[in-house]
Amino acid sequence: MLYITKSVTFSASHRLYNPEFSDEENERIFDKCNNFYGHGHNYTLEVTVAGEPNPKTGYIIDLKILKKIIQDEILSKVDHKHLNHDVEFLKGIIPTVENLAIAFWNRLENNFQDGKLHCIRLYETENSYVEYFGKKRD
Amino acid sequence: MLYITKSVTFSASHRLYNPEFSDEENERIFDKCNNFYGHGHNYTLEVTVAGEPNPKTGYIIDLKILKKIIQDEILSKVDHKHLNHDVEFLKGIIPTVENLAIAFWNRLENNFQDGKLHCIRLYETENSYVEYFGKKRD
Amino acid sequence: MLYITKSVTFSASHRLYNPEFSDEENERIFDKCNNFYGHGHNYTLEVTVAGEPNPKTGYIIDLKILKKIIQDEILSKVDHKHLNHDVEFLKGIIPTVENLAIAFWNRLENNFQDGKLHCIRLYETENSYVEYFGKKRD
Amino acid sequence: MLYITKSVTFSASHRLYNPEFSDEENERIFDKCNNFYGHGHNYTLEVTVAGEPNPKTGYIIDLKILKKIIQDEILSKVDHKHLNHDVEFLKGIIPTVENLAIAFWNRLENNFQDGKLHCIRLYETENSYVEYFGKKRD
Amino acid sequence: MLYITKSVTFSASHRLYNPEFSDEENERIFDKCNNFYGHGHNYTLEVTVAGEPNPKTGYIIDLKILKKIIQDEILSKVDHKHLNHDVEFLKGIIPTVENLAIAFWNRLENNFQDGKLHCIRLYETENSYVEYFGKKRD
Amino acid sequence: MLYITKSVTFSASHRLYNPEFSDEENERIFDKCNNFYGHGHNYTLEVTVAGEPNPKTGYIIDLKILKKIIQDEILSKVDHKHLNHDVEFLKGIIPTVENLAIAFWNRLENNFQDGKLHCIRLYETENSYVEYFGKKRD
Repeated sequence: MLYITKSVTFSASHRLYNPEFSDEENERIFDKCNNFYGHGHNYTLEVTVAGEPNPKTGYIIDLKILKKIIQDEILSKVDHKHLNHDVEFLKGIIPTVENLAIAFWNRLENNFQDGKLHCIRLYETENSYVEYFGKKRD
Repeated sequence: MLYITKSVTFSASHRLYNPEFSDEENERIFDKCNNFYGHGHNYTLEVTVAGEPNPKTGYIIDLKILKKIIQDEILSKVDHKHLNHDVEFLKGIIPTVENLAIAFWNRLENNFQDGKLHCIRLYETENSYVEYFGKKRD
Repeated sequence: MLYITKSVTFSASHRLYNPEFSDEENERIFDKCNNFYGHGHNYTLEVTVAGEPNPKTGYIIDLKILKKIIQDEILSKVDHKHLNHDVEFLKGIIPTVENLAIAFWNRLENNFQDGKLHCIRLYETENSYVEYFGKKRD
Repeated sequence: MLYITKSVTFSASHRLYNPEFSDEENERIFDKCNNFYGHGHNYTLEVTVAGEPNPKTGYIIDLKILKKIIQDEILSKVDHKHLNHDVEFLKGIIPTVENLAIAFWNRLENNFQDGKLHCIRLYETENSYVEYFGKKRD
Repeated sequence: MLYITKSVTFSASHRLYNPEFSDEENERIFDKCNNFYGHGHNYTLEVTVAGEPNPKTGYIIDLKILKKIIQDEILSKVDHKHLNHDVEFLKGIIPTVENLAIAFWNRLENNFQDGKLHCIRLYETENSYVEYFGKKRD
Repeated sequence: MLYITKSVTFSASHRLYNPEFSDEENERIFDKCNNFYGHGHNYTLEVTVAGEPNPKTGYIIDLKILKKIIQDEILSKVDHKHLNHDVEFLKGIIPTVENLAIAFWNRLENNFQDGKLHCIRLYETENSYVEYFGKKRD
């Protein structure tokens, strides 16, 4: 088994906010991430696919195909968007980096003919990131 | 003359939009940067100060002082904010990386006792940045 | 299960030296790392916490809390210090990057209410690092 | 168990091409990677060794020894070479990043007295890499 | 005057070789860069344009336009190519990073309606690069 | 005129301290950088040489020669050393990044047959650096 990873970036804004909380609670819990109009990040998304190299091509998965899946399923929906307002598949989700990683996994999981989705790593800044390996590894 | 540079980061959202333009013009000119609710970036701001090292300390400027000036004048106003809505000193400015660099220069220019502001370099992504040396070098 | 990682940096000096060895052995084994007055590094410390996101907040652990734990337990003790002379919890330890990773794990392990310490990754330079997952995964 | 990783770089060129395919198939499958004269990369190779720190030295493996093994077994053969033409141990292999990672593992695996080879991570660009943990973890 | 920089990458191979030299001279002067089949790099190209921001848009030059110029004039010709064999505008040039920077400047110089080409910075590896400001600044 | 830059790293420790100051003054001015046993950094040193490419080789200066000059004049003296105690040419200098940059310039300036020393850029951390262009540009 080998693991191949493709890294992409996108720029988006978000606001951390739970409508069930009072304003004071939102302010206390989410602090500066609770700013009404939001704030933003250059996110880096790493998608790892596990598999055996095809002996004819030496590829687990053609990176052009992997990139197209990521583009179609994720980047075309989230790049240069406000994650709370503009993204259908994130409706009702507090867009923390944890919840985004799970949502991206769910978008991507069933798109692979070659190899199998193994890991989503999502950087919110250069100094903080989340990894998710799907439910099967819980 | 030596040049010392301090690099900091902040996370903010913005929307590129000129109220004098029609919606169609804004869309055509600013494209995905014109998204109504905005999008965001992890900006990296490099501030360069020019001067001679003080012979007693070996410092052009104490980096703690430089950092405090940047924190007070810039970061405390823009970090985790929406640059179109939340920042007094950016009112009426289209928040392109060019205009932000000029606005940051103007905020910082008169704060230095040791050394002299030499350059603002502002990265909007890892792959694009603007440099501004002030009016005096025009 | 998700994994969230916070990355921080600190600057410290150290000397690799075993008092049980002769000077010649120390010199042969630790080579330039055995320099009497020590040498130094900008270390990068990545701390990974495993857990489920809290459904109310979307957080495994609030990164401000994670950062405060790292600051109080590690950075306040080692940043701008000589690791052989100045750090109580490193007394008697040869401060290789391996031993530092274990010592940092032991300092951090019992500080988490939300999530569980999963991994310490410690970079001594950009090109070398150690990972430690605790005794339980041996 | 701890894991220590050494990262090195090399510059090489390659061409993706399967002699069993027709020119059209090679072109369709390998696309611009099939360019007749090849193209090249600055590869980054990370080699991870697992083990317990020696209590006398605090080392899993002396990084100078690890670096020498990588230099002798890999870098001296592939740096500033054309991977299809110049490298004996890659003959008959389509030099995808996947196949290179496996070939490098096989070159390195039996060279360790201290610690045990745990992972090969090979970056072809900053945005794509492969990880291989050997056959034993399949 | 402001300066805006766009950074792009491409992967190419090359061989340093002067047909006027004997094999021995080529070997002695260009050393491992003289390998017959070539070797390769992930080059990073930074293109800097100087100008005043347009007051209506806040742009010196729309980065999409800058990127298109770089793509059309440079990347479409050199990416995934062998610089000695495949690139018309490099014929007869020893493809050192110095000569590539000059050649890229000459390709780009007359393509700008907004702003003016100010600098080409070309990285051959992360640790070495050339800057060229055109003949006018000699 | 072109500019070629070579980047290298070294690891060293230092203490900021002026023997003319009282302990209280040293503590107040140099703060945590005044720690008695010192602290350390992975420094990155960029050396820029200006010149015209030799038409026979395409080189301003052979990077192997540039690297050897840096190795002989700087790295062999400062790498894995304590800059206050171990380095002859830094005796009597407060080893701030400013003073180091000037001292390195003075060591390097007269070593070039091809090209001319143009700039020393010295990073103390990833987020702070000094540039020095020599006395001639004051």
